[in-house]
Amino acid sequence: MSRRIDPWVLSEDRFRPELAPWRESLFTIGNGRLGTRGAFEEFRPGERRATFVNGLFVEPPGELPVLGAAPDWTDFSLTVDGEPFDLVAHPPAGYRRTLDLRTGELRRTVLWRGAETGTIRVEFRRILSMAEPHLAALDVHVTALTDPVEVNVQTGIKGGIPSPRVPAFRPLDASRIGNHTFGVDYESVDRRHRLQVRCHVRGLADPAYVDDLEHPRFRSTLVIDPGASVRVTKVVAYQAGADAGALLPTAGTDYAALADASRAAWERRWRTSDIRIDGDPYAELILRFAAFQLIAAASPDDPRAAIGARLMSGFGYRHHVFWDTDVFVVPYFTVTQPDLARTHLGYRYRGLPGARRKAARLGHRGAFYAWESADTGDEVTPEWTSPASGPPIRIWTGEQEEHITADVAWAADHYWRWTGDDEFLEAEGAEITLDGAVYWASRLEAEDDGLHLRKVIGPDEYHLHVDDNFYTNLLAAWHLRQATSVYRWLHERSPASAEALLARLGVTEAEVLGYADLADRVVLRRSADGVWEQHAGFFDLEPLDLEAFEPRTRAIYDLLGEERLQRTAVIKQPDVLMTMALLPDEADLAGSGTVNWSYYLPKTDHGSSLSLPIHALLAARLRDPEAAYEFFLRAAAIDLEDTMGNGVDGIHAACQGGLLQAALFGFAGLGLGCGGPTTDPRLPSHWSSMAFTCVYRGELHDIEIP
Amino acid sequence: MSRRIDPWVLSEDRFRPELAPWRESLFTIGNGRLGTRGAFEEFRPGERRATFVNGLFVEPPGELPVLGAAPDWTDFSLTVDGEPFDLVAHPPAGYRRTLDLRTGELRRTVLWRGAETGTIRVEFRRILSMAEPHLAALDVHVTALTDPVEVNVQTGIKGGIPSPRVPAFRPLDASRIGNHTFGVDYESVDRRHRLQVRCHVRGLADPAYVDDLEHPRFRSTLVIDPGASVRVTKVVAYQAGADAGALLPTAGTDYAALADASRAAWERRWRTSDIRIDGDPYAELILRFAAFQLIAAASPDDPRAAIGARLMSGFGYRHHVFWDTDVFVVPYFTVTQPDLARTHLGYRYRGLPGARRKAARLGHRGAFYAWESADTGDEVTPEWTSPASGPPIRIWTGEQEEHITADVAWAADHYWRWTGDDEFLEAEGAEITLDGAVYWASRLEAEDDGLHLRKVIGPDEYHLHVDDNFYTNLLAAWHLRQATSVYRWLHERSPASAEALLARLGVTEAEVLGYADLADRVVLRRSADGVWEQHAGFFDLEPLDLEAFEPRTRAIYDLLGEERLQRTAVIKQPDVLMTMALLPDEADLAGSGTVNWSYYLPKTDHGSSLSLPIHALLAARLRDPEAAYEFFLRAAAIDLEDTMGNGVDGIHAACQGGLLQAALFGFAGLGLGCGGPTTDPRLPSHWSSMAFTCVYRGELHDIEIP
Repeated sequence: MSRRIDPWVLSEDRFRPELAPWRESLFTIGNGRLGTRGAFEEFRPGERRATFVNGLFVEPPGELPVLGAAPDWTDFSLTVDGEPFDLVAHPPAGYRRTLDLRTGELRRTVLWRGAETGTIRVEFRRILSMAEPHLAALDVHVTALTDPVEVNVQTGIKGGIPSPRVPAFRPLDASRIGNHTFGVDYESVDRRHRLQVRCHVRGLADPAYVDDLEHPRFRSTLVIDPGASVRVTKVVAYQAGADAGALLPTAGTDYAALADASRAAWERRWRTSDIRIDGDPYAELILRFAAFQLIAAASPDDPRAAIGARLMSGFGYRHHVFWDTDVFVVPYFTVTQPDLARTHLGYRYRGLPGARRKAARLGHRGAFYAWESADTGDEVTPEWTSPASGPPIRIWTGEQEEHITADVAWAADHYWRWTGDDEFLEAEGAEITLDGAVYWASRLEAEDDGLHLRKVIGPDEYHLHVDDNFYTNLLAAWHLRQATSVYRWLHERSPASAEALLARLGVTEAEVLGYADLADRVVLRRSADGVWEQHAGFFDLEPLDLEAFEPRTRAIYDLLGEERLQRTAVIKQPDVLMTMALLPDEADLAGSGTVNWSYYLPKTDHGSSLSLPIHALLAARLRDPEAAYEFFLRAAAIDLEDTMGNGVDGIHAACQGGLLQAALFGFAGLGLGCGGPTTDPRLPSHWSSMAFTCVYRGELHDIEIP
Repeated sequence: MSRRIDPWVLSEDRFRPELAPWRESLFTIGNGRLGTRGAFEEFRPGERRATFVNGLFVEPPGELPVLGAAPDWTDFSLTVDGEPFDLVAHPPAGYRRTLDLRTGELRRTVLWRGAETGTIRVEFRRILSMAEPHLAALDVHVTALTDPVEVNVQTGIKGGIPSPRVPAFRPLDASRIGNHTFGVDYESVDRRHRLQVRCHVRGLADPAYVDDLEHPRFRSTLVIDPGASVRVTKVVAYQAGADAGALLPTAGTDYAALADASRAAWERRWRTSDIRIDGDPYAELILRFAAFQLIAAASPDDPRAAIGARLMSGFGYRHHVFWDTDVFVVPYFTVTQPDLARTHLGYRYRGLPGARRKAARLGHRGAFYAWESADTGDEVTPEWTSPASGPPIRIWTGEQEEHITADVAWAADHYWRWTGDDEFLEAEGAEITLDGAVYWASRLEAEDDGLHLRKVIGPDEYHLHVDDNFYTNLLAAWHLRQATSVYRWLHERSPASAEALLARLGVTEAEVLGYADLADRVVLRRSADGVWEQHAGFFDLEPLDLEAFEPRTRAIYDLLGEERLQRTAVIKQPDVLMTMALLPDEADLAGSGTVNWSYYLPKTDHGSSLSLPIHALLAARLRDPEAAYEFFLRAAAIDLEDTMGNGVDGIHAACQGGLLQAALFGFAGLGLGCGGPTTDPRLPSHWSSMAFTCVYRGELHDIEIP
């Protein structure tokens, strides 16, 4: 509650065991290739220790694919005069943890004494190198403060990490390579991946090697006099499958040198990701945390890597990829870190075969993207979920939440317009766009009154099997027009490419050119006063006074149940309003934004972490920046205060991306005019100025408001 | 962490079981006569439910006196469709608790469902009437939100409250008085107090009376349809011993009417206690919380009532009174709520016989105030304490922390100078002052080099049995001079009173007139560069680098132990600097404040809650308001964030008083000139203005800075 905020540092001043699981997510570090949750180095009961290697999806027997937790490099245990260094058994006498967003370094300082020991000070520092993304480094500094202590250290590579239930990797072989180094080879439990790990430890006196295949490690005893200290440095390299190159850094394994190089690499990212706000250090911290965690989870160059719905910070959704990435994360990357956006679009391109398999399985042509995808692009949404009590619940989103296909095309178009990356559009974007449109053309059902999409789920997932969801229909119509337009562009640029694409997709030019006409016939319903009907029959649903349910922290879904929700006019998250955020012209934001806002907002549960940031963005566009700022704070609290109570599963990617979009596209009103970036600011009154950088067609634009 | 702060409302948005014990202290309400911890109405495992009646000290067999917890009026349990309303068994679906500092109303709204029940909304509101201080009122509003529910209510007066270990009262008799009312009579376990309680409940359909002497109560079952609600109002009166007057309000027992009258009474207190700070709503909240809790714990008219070190918010120190009240709380009351200051001085006057007994027992003349006192003024400091591990520890403060006597005289003088209350000085203040001086004159040991006080404990309680503690010696010297001066004043005002006082104290006029000369001979030691030596030998103690112990949350006492601390130059709290806060001229703040600050601050552990606010005050006076503001925030965090970890025992009276003094005497530089109040502002840079009211000689002075 203190009003002094360091806008670059996420910090924690006390160890509270009950908050520790969520804080492990919050203090995640990453470099796009590796991600490590903020679990303590030493064991903590209930910990969810995890390091992820981006892209290494593993399919344990009988389970859906999951980004497998790799064997753990942070492992570092101490005993002090025979007593385990354990913050639960003996609460610390001092504790401070900081995540320096500028440098990417996580630091934890603990003052501790056991029942019968003197007081020691232990400082842990760790990075995942942004300069050499296969490298992890840990620095541990132990000082005796009051009495001489004998410290026994064990540190190595810990296998058998639950991922989230069973381990994803099994060890094949471990061996000591030198005085300070050992190596371990692993295989994923589905045998699809090999993973080599090298571990190098300096600072231990005469280390013994413990030849335990599940936990190879060094062991050493240090005697420290009062006032004296020892420093142990550990550098670990992860090498998966086809990776080449030396495992440990040739330039040595000095922690400070590795940290310096990593910081320099982060500085390059911050050049375009920093947002400065005079008058609101907390908002700066919110936005820097968001940018940090998004960048930390995004590979700059590997399209096999994926940005999961909980980033690389937890096991939520098994790291599966949703529209969260396309619509909430990628538009932010597009304008600040376009290489990271491009990698995701490459991931989507790689997923096309899976999307085609899904469409075919459901009896349609074209490509129907997976609602949840792992590495192949095939649908991996679970069909059933088991709540804490009651019978299993059927999940329909895999079959019915069709808008994902248009979301991908929308992200590709947004990327292309900002970057001018014609090569992408020709090589990958056009195919993504056209094959999705082929799906829509095959899927739409013709009636006398127009084209329908029946039995779908829109962004409002509280209403299942609905007809003509407004978001889905409008996005599908946009997608069809976009396909015609992209085809014309491609044909103009390279007739041969266009022809080859048509052949590959099995459609004729006439079909594709006709998509724009199809689009005009897609049914969209609107009341006399301009309210779009979210789906057929929505206007007739039973009203519910959501205000009477205040103060509410649980989703209304939990209180009413799925069945009653079907007939109740309460929505999980913006749906009609969501179209206004993505397609303001098509959804008539300028004309009917306010009337739709007034109609839908009181019916909105914010039962998804995607809801609040979009409301922040739209409130700013609708010229109410103070209301927007309230939504912005509430959205930030989802991860920074765990207000949804599921923080242990990881940081909410879409919410973080949404916060950044609310800042740029909402408060600053960043847009694209004929001559490049434009702004139309609506800052909260206490923001005296705002400054940021965007990237347009490869060039940096430094923008200052006012 | 949200930056939106309501500067009048302390709030809590989630129920966190692990924080609940401390939050019970934080959400205490009071009216000077009654104080009730913020325990839930329904039972919570681990609760420390307590209502205190100010002044009712009880001495359970074999224990030290304690302010006894009275039988509980907040008792209100529900079952919903047979399931107990229990936030631990079934975490709430929504929760918000607010303490409105302006009105004194505590409100808790809970959204809840059991395993098999519909969702209900329960709103609890409670006040302790500031208008009629023997009255407590509770209003409970239950709404069914989703399904019909059958609610069983039981509400009454719960006896057997541990206080803190055994109950302080036993029931004698309980009987139903009418359809909606019952009465219970209690006796304290030491048979010194009688307590009558009347309980009146409206809103229950056909209530049954449960004739249980330990827990007499009404019981009723209510059926509530979805969307409908019921309201139950409970009014309870506490009448102790000699109190007269009707027990229940004659004007009816309407909650809203009682709350309105109470709010109006609070408004009168806020007229002189509100501090407004443009640019810092959090600082406003800090200061309003402080003023609220101090006023809530202070009787305006009953000198048997006492302001304990943890106010009426917990069992810490068994509600005993320390110098915390005289030096940290009363100077604030003196300038804003002089009647509350006066009551405490009346309490001290009542304590004189006990102080005389203590001096006599130790072989001295005059009055030596108890380090800890309850109702009689006799010393009630425990002689031993039992730590969690290790052998019992002898507590020496009762014998050795002698400065308390001068602190009381200092508070009386400060009060008199601001209020001009000559009647007080003549009737009580002069006797307090003179009899304390008689003690000092009897206690001082003469050597060739001057007068000494050997084997004392100063404010820095880390060093025991020290000689010539600077704070004690300087305050004693001031006290001796003050006695001579007060005697001269009294003699001039009323020679008969002066003569009678001398006779009562058994001293001659010559002795008293000679005290000023004694004062000049009290030993005070100082280094060549102006550093006062805290006690004989302090300059030779072993140095310790406290910085190396950062980040530290536990007191250095816990890490080094008492024995080593004796020879180490680390102090618990300001001692030399404390004299500068109280007697800036005598301690040469203007000349040597900075050099003493630089010398002592790095040696200060802040192991007491008294330490940080005094540093805030002094830093402001030494013209570093930004540093002062950091101390101010850290001091506020002791209670608002439980940074010392002992919040369950109650709010720290001295810290709250110190925060208010830091604001008024520090940041605003409030002082007393020849013509009345003066200011010498040193505001933190982000405070664009500050406004408050002080009372000087019965007149209100509205002060605005700048």
